[in-house]
Amino acid sequence: MRISHLFAAFAAMAFLSAPAKAEEASRAPITIVIHGGAGALAPGRYTPEEEAAYKAKLLEAVNAGYAVLEKGGRSIDAVEAAIVVMEDSPLFNAGKGAVFTRNGRNELDASIMDGKTVNAGAVAGVSHVKNPIKLARAVMDESPHVMFARDGAEKFAREHGLQMVSRRYFRTERRWKEYKEALKADKEKKGASLPYAYDWKFGTVGAVALDRDGNIAAGTSTGGMTLKRYGRVGDSPIIGAGAFADNRSCAVSSTGWGEYFMRLVIARDICAQVEYAHKSVKEAADDVIHHRLPDLGGDGGVIVLDPHGNYTFAFNTSGMFRAVRQEGAEPQVAIYEEK
Amino acid sequence: MRISHLFAAFAAMAFLSAPAKAEEASRAPITIVIHGGAGALAPGRYTPEEEAAYKAKLLEAVNAGYAVLEKGGRSIDAVEAAIVVMEDSPLFNAGKGAVFTRNGRNELDASIMDGKTVNAGAVAGVSHVKNPIKLARAVMDESPHVMFARDGAEKFAREHGLQMVSRRYFRTERRWKEYKEALKADKEKKGASLPYAYDWKFGTVGAVALDRDGNIAAGTSTGGMTLKRYGRVGDSPIIGAGAFADNRSCAVSSTGWGEYFMRLVIARDICAQVEYAHKSVKEAADDVIHHRLPDLGGDGGVIVLDPHGNYTFAFNTSGMFRAVRQEGAEPQVAIYEEK
Repeated sequence: MRISHLFAAFAAMAFLSAPAKAEEASRAPITIVIHGGAGALAPGRYTPEEEAAYKAKLLEAVNAGYAVLEKGGRSIDAVEAAIVVMEDSPLFNAGKGAVFTRNGRNELDASIMDGKTVNAGAVAGVSHVKNPIKLARAVMDESPHVMFARDGAEKFAREHGLQMVSRRYFRTERRWKEYKEALKADKEKKGASLPYAYDWKFGTVGAVALDRDGNIAAGTSTGGMTLKRYGRVGDSPIIGAGAFADNRSCAVSSTGWGEYFMRLVIARDICAQVEYAHKSVKEAADDVIHHRLPDLGGDGGVIVLDPHGNYTFAFNTSGMFRAVRQEGAEPQVAIYEEK
Repeated sequence: MRISHLFAAFAAMAFLSAPAKAEEASRAPITIVIHGGAGALAPGRYTPEEEAAYKAKLLEAVNAGYAVLEKGGRSIDAVEAAIVVMEDSPLFNAGKGAVFTRNGRNELDASIMDGKTVNAGAVAGVSHVKNPIKLARAVMDESPHVMFARDGAEKFAREHGLQMVSRRYFRTERRWKEYKEALKADKEKKGASLPYAYDWKFGTVGAVALDRDGNIAAGTSTGGMTLKRYGRVGDSPIIGAGAFADNRSCAVSSTGWGEYFMRLVIARDICAQVEYAHKSVKEAADDVIHHRLPDLGGDGGVIVLDPHGNYTFAFNTSGMFRAVRQEGAEPQVAIYEEK
């Protein structure tokens, strides 16, 4: 499919949320929803060429996940497949292309959760694992634990055959330049709040999926916040904040100002509103993203999907890299807010 | 108060849960509830002398927290004060007396949360900070972040004037002996599941409190799981799992098999059931501890308190070290299950 066709397709439709279209009465439509970060993505920020590159990569990622589902694969595998595409791309702040810590390192976090088994895996602060989402998956599948951090997580990765890379693998000139500029501004005290500004929290990636068996899953991967220090852990590797999935309610992947997402336990809160207040995924996500989050001063966005195939994108920033593909419909990709 | 008086007092009353007794119609009674871990605490496990020592320390801790509340202090300060008493005691698996990792180290985790501001702080894997709960508090108060891990967290501690100690400070002969036995059994493959058995998950401490202004708070501190490795992070430093507090619902501190508490995001789930399903703290805690947790195969317990002074202890183990003191009533301390 040509990108130009896509532009035409999604220009005509608002897809911030959509009801499930059950193609077969007996089951919900297989669905994958992804994001590549939320932030100050006002139109004009990127050139048309850059926009096209982002959209092409989002389309590639959503299709990679959908291909798993179409073959009858599991939602957890679809989530992993979509995220790997974005981790391997230098466009996003996850895997290759991650932002730099204050010490000039890349420290990556990821989490994954299976809504059928309510099992989960997460890693924080790894620097030599090519695909942190695969390591989170290995923690889930091959250990009795949920979360490993830093050196210990890397030791586990080596012992379990994950692909390891040198530190230099993650480095991109774009991120290095951003890092140097941020460091300079911070040292000159021009921007005490710089590391917390929009531009330094971009690009976390994530996916939620629903498979033919009606099981949902969620995953999130990030390079964290530019100039982060003290072994700061953000929301991405925190089950309940950065990701959550339970067939009883919904699957969520988050992106944004992590500290607020952790305090609000955003992913679990959205699914709790679905589960206990019987809200739709859109109503629940809107309450959290448009009320609770800005009330505290935070910003960001989420993707949410329930086992019936109802999904929503919600963000209180001017944009969120995002895409969806649902059985019976063309894939859709977008960056800016839909009017 | 003599311990013998206490025995008489709590022998006569079941205090697994209690409605608030509003001493003043205009506000809820100031309250502090603490725990020192849940597990296979069947009667006979401890000698009468050991039981008395545990109960005396629990009483000291609950009174330390209550003294803060009685003077009009904040719930967050009461929580910290109570936990510091337990961290400083070798009886509990937190601060001094922490269990050992596979490498023979003590790695401590803690978290704290203020229900009024929904602000939170947490640290994972520190080895030189005398009181991890104080460090979690400093992260909350003195940084824009929520969570720091390992070396980075220790750097933050040093820069913020926390009391640092040598590794040997945390070591007790009792825990060292347990470690050596566990290591031997594990190496002989006698107990592949040993580190996950009851006895190796004991002694996490925590507190929830309600102050005169009607604000609630929660905190949790632990030495983690014996023989843990790979930088394993348990539930204690995870906001939403090990601790959660929000004046809109309730305050929770957890203890038990951390991985299950993380997967269920137990603290947030309980408060979500209070908030969205309009359950009492007892109904919500019972659903999670007696249904959702054992359905997955997990065990442990929680203490829960709402802004009206309603509190509950819930555990699916044979015992939980616990105490409560509420305005207008004598402090109560217990270990075993009440019949």
